[in-house]
Amino acid sequence: MAAAQSAPNLQFAARRSIEQVELGRDLAPKFDADGLIAVVATDIDSGELLMHGYMNAEALTRTIETGQAHYWSRSRACLWHKGATSGFVQHVRQMLIDDDQDAVWLRVRVDGGASCHVGYRSCFYRSIPIGPAAEDEMPRLQFTETELVFDPAQVYGNAPNPTQL
Amino acid sequence: MAAAQSAPNLQFAARRSIEQVELGRDLAPKFDADGLIAVVATDIDSGELLMHGYMNAEALTRTIETGQAHYWSRSRACLWHKGATSGFVQHVRQMLIDDDQDAVWLRVRVDGGASCHVGYRSCFYRSIPIGPAAEDEMPRLQFTETELVFDPAQVYGNAPNPTQL
Repeated sequence: MAAAQSAPNLQFAARRSIEQVELGRDLAPKFDADGLIAVVATDIDSGELLMHGYMNAEALTRTIETGQAHYWSRSRACLWHKGATSGFVQHVRQMLIDDDQDAVWLRVRVDGGASCHVGYRSCFYRSIPIGPAAEDEMPRLQFTETELVFDPAQVYGNAPNPTQL
Repeated sequence: MAAAQSAPNLQFAARRSIEQVELGRDLAPKFDADGLIAVVATDIDSGELLMHGYMNAEALTRTIETGQAHYWSRSRACLWHKGATSGFVQHVRQMLIDDDQDAVWLRVRVDGGASCHVGYRSCFYRSIPIGPAAEDEMPRLQFTETELVFDPAQVYGNAPNPTQL
């Protein structure tokens, strides 16, 4: 009998030594106390950083097996197939892991070209000015994107905003 | 009297509303329960992801004020001026923050061209193969960098390895 489509087969290796983790070929991810690993997605063509998120073991497995980015939504506390609501699926062209295997880098192509729930192409649409501050100075962010790619109200309707204060 | 060089002047805004955080010009970073915010550094020229780390409020302030990347080392539990030991200082050319202000993106130029304590240019020197797995299959990582930029033993001597199992 064929395995159900939703049953992941993939196994991760146990973390046995620093040499194995840093210099070996085992995938031995380090999940934090909440069972999460940090994830960064960049655009495969422009190199632009699109978003920063987290995966649990299931999201990591599904991303590897399907080639589409899955995350763990901390604000909604659920598995999150990116683009399931908005249509802005992230197709993973290359997937890398860092030296101590506690961070994942997805190089993606995005259907529709947007990755940010606010409506911008990237979640990183504001820059922080660099330089010495006067006493008690408050930095003022500068917008680096000025045009929304989509209208969040049309795409998400009345769904609650994931941003938490 | 001039303020001591080590006394940061910069103030962050309180997080008052989703609109302020997402669409405003206040820098109102969201530190997690451990007082940390996620940080990603990419190479300003190649766009390559160099590392993923964390900052506390002091590291964020020092990075903004000096234009050189400072992190909070979770494994060593200390403020970490990147490059202080190795010489591989990260000069921040642009600094961005994401929609809900819980992640920072540094676009940097690195003295010496390396950002990974293992000796590679980037911490992300291994790729994860994408695709359906056979039952109980263990993925095998592929090296995407093959040449070390420096010899960690020469640079760090007997300093403890920051990777934790």
